[in-house]
This record gives sequence, structure tokens and C-alpha cells, in this order.
Amino acid sequence: MNDAVLSHRDIDALGARAETMITELGEISAEPGRLVRLFLSKEHRRAADVVGSWMRAAGMAVTEDALGTVRGRWCDPDERTGARRLLVGSHIDTVIDAGKYDGPLGVVAGILAVDRLSRRRRRFAFGIDVLAFGDEEGSRFPSNLSTSAAVAGKFDPATLALADRDGISYGTALAAYGKNADDIATVAYSRDEAAAYVEVHIEQGPTLEARGEPLGVVSGIIGQNKMQVTVEGEAGHAGTVPMELRRDALAGAAQLVLAIERIARDDAVDRMVATVGRIEVLPGATNIIPGRVTFTVDLRAESNDRRRDAMASIKAQAWEIVETRGLQITFDPYHESTTTPCAPELRKLLATSIAGLGHRPFELPSGAGHDAQMMAHLCPSAMMFVRCRDGISHNPNEFASPRDMGLAIAALIGFIERFDPDRLEAP
Amino acid sequence: MNDAVLSHRDIDALGARAETMITELGEISAEPGRLVRLFLSKEHRRAADVVGSWMRAAGMAVTEDALGTVRGRWCDPDERTGARRLLVGSHIDTVIDAGKYDGPLGVVAGILAVDRLSRRRRRFAFGIDVLAFGDEEGSRFPSNLSTSAAVAGKFDPATLALADRDGISYGTALAAYGKNADDIATVAYSRDEAAAYVEVHIEQGPTLEARGEPLGVVSGIIGQNKMQVTVEGEAGHAGTVPMELRRDALAGAAQLVLAIERIARDDAVDRMVATVGRIEVLPGATNIIPGRVTFTVDLRAESNDRRRDAMASIKAQAWEIVETRGLQITFDPYHESTTTPCAPELRKLLATSIAGLGHRPFELPSGAGHDAQMMAHLCPSAMMFVRCRDGISHNPNEFASPRDMGLAIAALIGFIERFDPDRLEAP
Repeated sequence: MNDAVLSHRDIDALGARAETMITELGEISAEPGRLVRLFLSKEHRRAADVVGSWMRAAGMAVTEDALGTVRGRWCDPDERTGARRLLVGSHIDTVIDAGKYDGPLGVVAGILAVDRLSRRRRRFAFGIDVLAFGDEEGSRFPSNLSTSAAVAGKFDPATLALADRDGISYGTALAAYGKNADDIATVAYSRDEAAAYVEVHIEQGPTLEARGEPLGVVSGIIGQNKMQVTVEGEAGHAGTVPMELRRDALAGAAQLVLAIERIARDDAVDRMVATVGRIEVLPGATNIIPGRVTFTVDLRAESNDRRRDAMASIKAQAWEIVETRGLQITFDPYHESTTTPCAPELRKLLATSIAGLGHRPFELPSGAGHDAQMMAHLCPSAMMFVRCRDGISHNPNEFASPRDMGLAIAALIGFIERFDPDRLEAP
Repeated sequence: MNDAVLSHRDIDALGARAETMITELGEISAEPGRLVRLFLSKEHRRAADVVGSWMRAAGMAVTEDALGTVRGRWCDPDERTGARRLLVGSHIDTVIDAGKYDGPLGVVAGILAVDRLSRRRRRFAFGIDVLAFGDEEGSRFPSNLSTSAAVAGKFDPATLALADRDGISYGTALAAYGKNADDIATVAYSRDEAAAYVEVHIEQGPTLEARGEPLGVVSGIIGQNKMQVTVEGEAGHAGTVPMELRRDALAGAAQLVLAIERIARDDAVDRMVATVGRIEVLPGATNIIPGRVTFTVDLRAESNDRRRDAMASIKAQAWEIVETRGLQITFDPYHESTTTPCAPELRKLLATSIAGLGHRPFELPSGAGHDAQMMAHLCPSAMMFVRCRDGISHNPNEFASPRDMGLAIAALIGFIERFDPDRLEAP
């Protein structure tokens, strides 16, 4: 145990370095004045190159897989390291008009932890891979966690056909990024190789701040269902079709948006949340009755049963609405994740490391999805949350203090020091 | 009176020519497979050039004004023509995924009528100008009838600041089209010069077909109010913000969309219609609570009072919705037209011409807006409607038969033969 090696000054220095690196990444954006870094974009390319250069500076060998995930491989300099690897990662894609901490903090924390351990010539009975995933937010394609899915051997080939807002398919964008879709199958780790996965991330909610704790151990990641809904009616002239003869796709969709909100609100037990975040109307002219509306539904709840019941209620209400209005509807589910408990042994190690820094190891669930939930299909996985200001995330006002980030990196170092791949059970 | 000059064969030949010309224009589109011809686009340029060549072939001198309206000027070959002009026109812009008759029919009818009168060496105590307007549909900018507004001396300079979906302003697009906004003031006709305006257009509704009449005389154009509504809430993470703390701009907008529909439906007297045709959500990601929603409202009713009352009800309900939900709202009205009765003398002339062809001169109001309502600010104005199949318009299935179009051109020729600028009152 080398906790004592990290002084307050060391922790502050790590936090300051993290802040500098995160700010540098935060300047890589598709738009001036706001942060937009989409999967397989030019900005993704630039961010991946910067992350790769940091990994090399920290003593890692850098490769990039068939979906653009940057991988920094750190081996024991004496080559005593076995085949087993501790995976540390997060993502470098962002939402539109994002904050700079969501994702990059976990990648930077992994790099700075390895950098410190490398400089101190620490030796472990396992190697460390730092992973920078590229498709966590689903901001470009209606996909989700596709890059960590590939690493976990769970990539769905149907993902390649999904189109972005400009009609460019995932497969086409991947080829333009210089990757070959045929190589995706080679991306997965073997279960023998992947000993565990750990991810540092800002909380994106108000709980740690309310408790006065800088760090938290994630108990589990709550499950999600995501689908795209298409309502079809009949386009017509806004001036000549009487109200009673209309089959207005947007009016039907509006009714369903409100029904979805009501279903989530009515769930008092489970803190269920439902969001319609995107909606598109065709033909989309001021003087034409909408003929077709497409929108997304994002539904989350800790109880898998209650979440599935809610999905069924949404569909039942939708059928009723379209029946009454003479519309048609299709549901295209594109993501389902069950609630993923984090691995108990790893939670204990994280808690011990946080306690070793003099803080209370508070446990809380994650309402947001994370690459960790995909990685849990491959190996025992866990997450550490870092306090963020006012619970704000996915917003330029997102903020985590350098001090809290330094503590998170120190706790990650403590975790690595304590980690023993032989004391973990297979998932 | 020269009705007898037009045989059934002549009428069919005119209809066949109209169909050929309209089909040629219908192939000028920004997209393969569907008709999209927006104001000040490359396709507008190409369509304007084709129309100009037809005008020249029909014996007209062709100019283009500062907003791109193509003007074919036909003068008495003996130069006995006074300064007064009969204006005949319609528009060549389209909605997105349009039918090919809406607009072009009126331009083609004017050209073919002049062509016929020119070849027959007819002489009148007035000149004829055929006008091809470019911004009737408002499909590119949230403007409406701006090109006929300029011709009528009613152009609003604020229009220049309106932006299209790509953020390009009307003024910028106009400059790119090679026009100078400073010249817009010179576009207007003087009241002395403009004797009257007449427009041939497909009905875009089911009435003439239901009555078994190929042609109709428009009694008036019902008034419209158009506005853009912006609802502002707070963007946030779809997984971490509880339902009760959300200020979801889309949920508020959905409630208002339904309120607007209800207000129009509840108006049993006036055949009021209300349409929300465009909606945009920011940031527009599947996993972010909508922070800002913008949508358009198009409201039409024959009674100006009832229409204005309905606008007030929409705003009252909107204030209630945003108050309850902790949202903010702004209303940007960008178009208001009162109900425009067509000029009685011109309606009589159209009725006589239709009767002269052996048909019943049926009168009906127009639920759609037309350039004629803007031209009525300048001079006595009237419209003739042509039967269309199943009342379908703003849709690729739009159809008017060559026979009905031939009849319309014959009736327009009869109208011109009977027209006397000295027997009209100022508007």
C-alpha cells in the first residue's frame, strides 16, 4: 500500500494536470463557441491523436482498434507481467453543446495514474490498458456504447446501417475514418485477458454535492430502453384540409410525448425517467400538415420489470392514440440494457481506496449509462463518481474541481495498488 | 368576344401544351425523385430561365426584378397600348416534396394566353405582363408572398434578416442570387400602371371535384396568421434529472400543439384550420432533455375577428402551460393577412368567360394564401380555380387534367378579351 506516497500537494498537482488536459481536449470541437465532438468526426480524429500522444508520454504503447478506440498498453518494464490486463477507460465523444469533463476525465485519470505508477517504477502481476472509447453518447448515430460493445465482444452488426442526421451510415462514416468493418470481430478482449474494468466519471447528478463527498462508489448502472418511434399520417395543405379530415402526424406524436412523460411521472417508487430528446417532422414546412414524425424515447429505471412494464404502457397508449387519429406507428427499439450492478469486489477496493484518502466511501446508483455497463459483459466492472457542480452535465456549465479530480486519480492509483486479478470471480 | 375562335380541339391543344410545360418545370428540382424548388436556389434560377425563354417565344420582352420575379411584357405590336397593364401571374417556387401544378399552372396559363392572343394579332387598350413570383410557399424562409409584396409596394425590409434552416439569411441568399437589396424599392408598379391582377391556380381542395365543375371563381382568400413560437426550458441529462425537477421544452411545446389543434377544432362556424408544420428541438440528442423548442403556427379563418380571437386564445393557453411548467415562451408573428375578397367586377368577368365555355361559374373561397391577396393591395385582383384530383396538393400525387387546364386557359383568354381597365374601380 502506497497511499502515503501521495501528499496533498501531489493530489493537487494531479488535479491541475487533469484540468489542463481536459481543457485541451475541450477545445477540440466542430463548432466555435460550443463543444461538439461526434463519433468518427474530424474532431474525434484530433482528440484521439492528442490522447494517443499523452499515452505515449506516460510510457504506453498505443494502438487504435477497428472502431477508433484508442488503447494505451502499459506493461511491466521487467516483463514479469502475465497476460491479464486491468482495463481503465471512458469516452472522448461528446453530446452537442457539451461540458468538457463528461468522458475525458476517466481517460485522463487512467493516463495520469499510469504515468505516476510508471515514473515510480511500480511492478504489478497484471498489465494496464487505458481505453478511450468513441461512441458513448449516441449523439451522432442512434446507437449507444457501440465502441465498448465491440471491446466486450457484443457489437451488433446492424449498427453499421444506422444513419446520422445527414443520412450518412455508421458503416460509411467508419470507412471514411479509415477503418475496416471486417476487423470489428477482432476488437474484443478474451475473457482470460480482461481481468477487470474500472471507470472514473463525473456524477452528472446532485447527490455527492448534497452529501458533501468528493467521490462516490457506483452501486450499479440503471437499465435503459431506447427506441425510435415513427408516426405516419398524411401530408396536406395547411389551408384547405378541414380539421376533422386531418391525419396530422405531429398532433399524434405530441399526444404520445405527453403520455410518455405521464407514465414516468406516475412511477413514484423507482425514480423512473423518460425523455423524448429528438423529433423530426416531414415534410417540415410551415404550411403543410405533418405527414411523418420520428422521435426518440429514452426510458430508465432501476427495476428491470417496472421499466419493461412502462415500455409496454407506452406502446399501449400509442396504439390507442394512433387508432383514434387514423395514424400508423412503428417502434424501432435500438438499445436495451438491464440494470448492471457493479462488481462487489471492485466496489470494496474502491471504497477502501477512498477511505485511505480520508473520505467516506459513499455508494450511489448511476442514472446515466456508461461504457462500464457494456464492459460488465466481459469482466468484473466498477465505477467511481466525482462530484460535479449543481448536478449539471451535458451543458457547458458542467464543472468538477481540480481538487476533486486529483482525489479521484489518487483513489484510482490506490485501487490499482490494491488490485489482484486472482481474487476476482468471473462475471 | 372571340370565344367561338377556341374549338374543343384548340382547348385540348392548350391543355396538352400546359401539361408539357408544367412537366418540364416539374423536373427542375434540388433532389432526385422528389420536387423541391426553393426560393433563390439554383433550381429557382433554372426555372426562371426556362420561364423567361417561354415568355420570349410567346412574343414578350423579359426582365427580372430585384427579388427574382420574372416579368414577361407584352405590348400591342402597333404600339397603341396605353400605360395600363393587366397583370397575370402565379409562382414557380414549391414546397418540399411538392406537386408540379401548384404555381406553375398560373404562369403557364398566362404565357399560353398571351401566345395565342399574340399569334392571332389581337389588339387591346392595355398591355399584359405575365409575372412568375418566387416566394409564395414560404418553404425556405419563414416569410410569405415576399416577391408579390415587393411588386405591390408592400415589401417589409425586416424580411431580409430571416434565416433559412441552414442559417443563411434572406439578404445573403438574395445577394448570392445576384440581386441588390437596394433595388427592391424600385420593384413596385404604380397604381396607374397596374390595372388589375388575375391568377389561375389549382384549387388544392375537394370542392370543385365534388361539384363536378372544372373551373371556379374565387370569392376571396381567407386570412392567415403565422408566427414562430419559441419555448425555453433547461437542457439536462436524460438519466440523472428527476421528472419533477425537469423543465422540458418539448413536453411544454407538445401540450401547446394539442391546445392549438383543439382551438381550431372547437371553431364549428368558420372552418378554422391551424397547423404546426415545423418543429425543431435543441440540443436534439436522444439523451438530453430538450432545452429549447421552436415551432411554427399557421392559423386561417374567414372571419378576421374569430381568427384574431383564436390567436389570443393560443397565447393565453401558452402562458398557462409555461407558467405551470416553469418554462419561458416568445411569440414572433411574421405574417398576418386579413381575408381578401376578390374584386367583384373581375369575378363577374371570370364568371362570364366560364359560362361562355358552357360551364357553371361556381364561386368558392380559397383556404390557401396566394399572391393575389398581396396584389389586391395594388389593384383589383381575382383568381380562377381549376379542379384537382381528390383535393390533393403539396404532395407528388397532385393532379389537374390537361382538359381542365385547357378550359382554364380558354377562360383566361375570354377574360382578357372582355377586360376593360376603364370599367374598374380603384381598390
